[in-house]
Amino acid sequence: MNIEAIDGGHVTSPQGFSAGAVAASIKKRAGALDLGLLVSDRPAAAAGVFTQNLVRSAPVQVSEKRAHSGRLQGVVVNSGNANAPFDQKGIDDAELMAGMAARHAGCDEQLMAVASTGVTGVYLPLDKVEAGIPRIALSPNGGPDFALAIMTTDTKPKSYAVAVKEGATTVFTVGGCAKGSGMIHPNMATMLSYITTDANVDATLLKDLTKEVADTTYNMMTVDGDTSRSDTLLIFANGAAGGPAITRGSAQAETLRQALLAVGTELSRMLARDGEGASHLITVEVVNGPTLAHARNVARTVALSSLVKTAVTGNDPNWGRILVAAGRSGSPVEVAKTSVRLQDVLIFDTGRVIEFDETDVSKRMEEDEVRIQIDLGLGTHNATAWGCDLTTDYVHINADYRT
Amino acid sequence: MNIEAIDGGHVTSPQGFSAGAVAASIKKRAGALDLGLLVSDRPAAAAGVFTQNLVRSAPVQVSEKRAHSGRLQGVVVNSGNANAPFDQKGIDDAELMAGMAARHAGCDEQLMAVASTGVTGVYLPLDKVEAGIPRIALSPNGGPDFALAIMTTDTKPKSYAVAVKEGATTVFTVGGCAKGSGMIHPNMATMLSYITTDANVDATLLKDLTKEVADTTYNMMTVDGDTSRSDTLLIFANGAAGGPAITRGSAQAETLRQALLAVGTELSRMLARDGEGASHLITVEVVNGPTLAHARNVARTVALSSLVKTAVTGNDPNWGRILVAAGRSGSPVEVAKTSVRLQDVLIFDTGRVIEFDETDVSKRMEEDEVRIQIDLGLGTHNATAWGCDLTTDYVHINADYRT
Repeated sequence: MNIEAIDGGHVTSPQGFSAGAVAASIKKRAGALDLGLLVSDRPAAAAGVFTQNLVRSAPVQVSEKRAHSGRLQGVVVNSGNANAPFDQKGIDDAELMAGMAARHAGCDEQLMAVASTGVTGVYLPLDKVEAGIPRIALSPNGGPDFALAIMTTDTKPKSYAVAVKEGATTVFTVGGCAKGSGMIHPNMATMLSYITTDANVDATLLKDLTKEVADTTYNMMTVDGDTSRSDTLLIFANGAAGGPAITRGSAQAETLRQALLAVGTELSRMLARDGEGASHLITVEVVNGPTLAHARNVARTVALSSLVKTAVTGNDPNWGRILVAAGRSGSPVEVAKTSVRLQDVLIFDTGRVIEFDETDVSKRMEEDEVRIQIDLGLGTHNATAWGCDLTTDYVHINADYRT
Repeated sequence: MNIEAIDGGHVTSPQGFSAGAVAASIKKRAGALDLGLLVSDRPAAAAGVFTQNLVRSAPVQVSEKRAHSGRLQGVVVNSGNANAPFDQKGIDDAELMAGMAARHAGCDEQLMAVASTGVTGVYLPLDKVEAGIPRIALSPNGGPDFALAIMTTDTKPKSYAVAVKEGATTVFTVGGCAKGSGMIHPNMATMLSYITTDANVDATLLKDLTKEVADTTYNMMTVDGDTSRSDTLLIFANGAAGGPAITRGSAQAETLRQALLAVGTELSRMLARDGEGASHLITVEVVNGPTLAHARNVARTVALSSLVKTAVTGNDPNWGRILVAAGRSGSPVEVAKTSVRLQDVLIFDTGRVIEFDETDVSKRMEEDEVRIQIDLGLGTHNATAWGCDLTTDYVHINADYRT
């Protein structure tokens, strides 16, 4: 079976999913889509990964409880207000919002997840939600609008889908969308991502795959240290593509795994590239780590380092900063065994300072994607992390929005 | 006994310490002091705390080995070059440099510590060091010059001293100096700090006190995540003030502890305030934490949060960002028990969003020091962390130095 990217694919590309969105005036900007609904035409196997932050918004608490059952049929999302006053009224409002969406979609209330993103500390304008939901027209082509409605300060919507094919026949499809962090007064950064598939897969297998997708893609993506633990990822599998249930250990399970990872990887790269103020996507590939956990940890630490990020901003092939960030990661690093490549050029060789054409490498760093490759020489485990550079625009976006 | 700040006090304020510095042309800027020597007139009890980073410069490795004996008589420091090519020649050069300094000071070579700070990845210009050291004139008034010679991108030297007095009589004195992080191509951020005292204290007690000072002050100070684990702190106690040895558990030991903490705290505040590009010192006080480790962890996490830092840059009383940073610290945080004060004004009350005069609090945040107070309501342990805000100047300093 082949996994092929679908040109213009989105979250409703898989069969049996529809979505829609309206401008409900929750966002300040007039006419902006800010209330979206994504539903399956039947209850779907579902699994979620939610923020590890102990300070959690009301919708996260409600959705996590509902996803725990392994079955969901849809999710309603508003942008412009995070419903995060951190009290019981927040929980009540999230449940009311989900209830309205369930009635509009004609599904069981307990199968409707809910999310809110935007301003923190202000109660949800429930009247606007109540007026908006009945106006949402659900359609199999509604994915792009849904992706727009969940955006906050994202500069572009993020959608991606792949078809799993046997020859010319599509066996099943995986689609997804995501939003990055948004900063309005006073706020809470949130990443939201929804992945759908019409594959026929039971909830237990889906749960394991969801965790793997989160660990391998979303949890390896960082814009600043503050957002990395506020992620919410929901995966819906409604089985609309038909066929027998995909069982653990089968070839189809492996293909589904790869298709989910492909969608998760691409959305994570889009999220990192559109990090606030970013001018470069930074890809950090760690190879030959002693364990997977250590390889991931080194990759993430380097991708999050302010000094590495600003070196990328300045197109500076600074192996010293890369090495020092790796060295403080808490994972084993032996300088004498470590090599560093930047844009595929070797700039530090197993502990030795080497000559390289700095002007040339600096020039290559002007590309949209800057690839940092670290060979730890300590084992066989590899990991990739995605981040973005740190520019003065990040500071402006987060410091100056009052003015 | 009273602990009194000494006006214009510095690292050679305690008896028996002398220092000096010369311009050795290691720094590019002509005439800049860049080679300093601090010595005691007799071998001193000594203890050090060194970077936890696994990627360590040569001088750190040499000094750590020598400090391990519990006895040192001096330290030689150059700025402008970090002696960090990470190979054996780096180690050899550090030992040669320490040897030259020991001969000039007339002390045992093994009692001379060494430090280098500045450009990484380039061999130390040993000829300049060799020409410079004999020109250093050691004097009890040399502390300020020594503090200047260890600077890199610091905007001002950092010295502080206190006298411990019994009535009008000085029992002993504690002095210190420090430098913050410096960024030249390609570089490694390093914090250096030296504390001296003429108190008579044995090496074992001094070692414990040094660890406490580091944990309570230097390790609670953060400019960016990258520098916080590159600290080097050396404390020298030469006993020149006379009197019987200070024994563990005595009232004098407690006074010495407080005096060392006073010097460490003030130098840490100076370092944070002079963080690259900083426009505010941020003080994060966590009270009523469940354990000391958790209180420290929450304080440090909030002080390091990019979103909290940029909120301070923008004079934004953003309790949401403070709460969310605390929530991702990994320490227990219960929103319903948490209160937040900013410049002493309550802005979030035990889980409740409250009304406060945002314009007034924002105005108060224009002060040089912004104080964030977090009451966790989970115990009795308190901790303070110091940081600085994140400005566009930080990005310029670290991204644009090539241009």
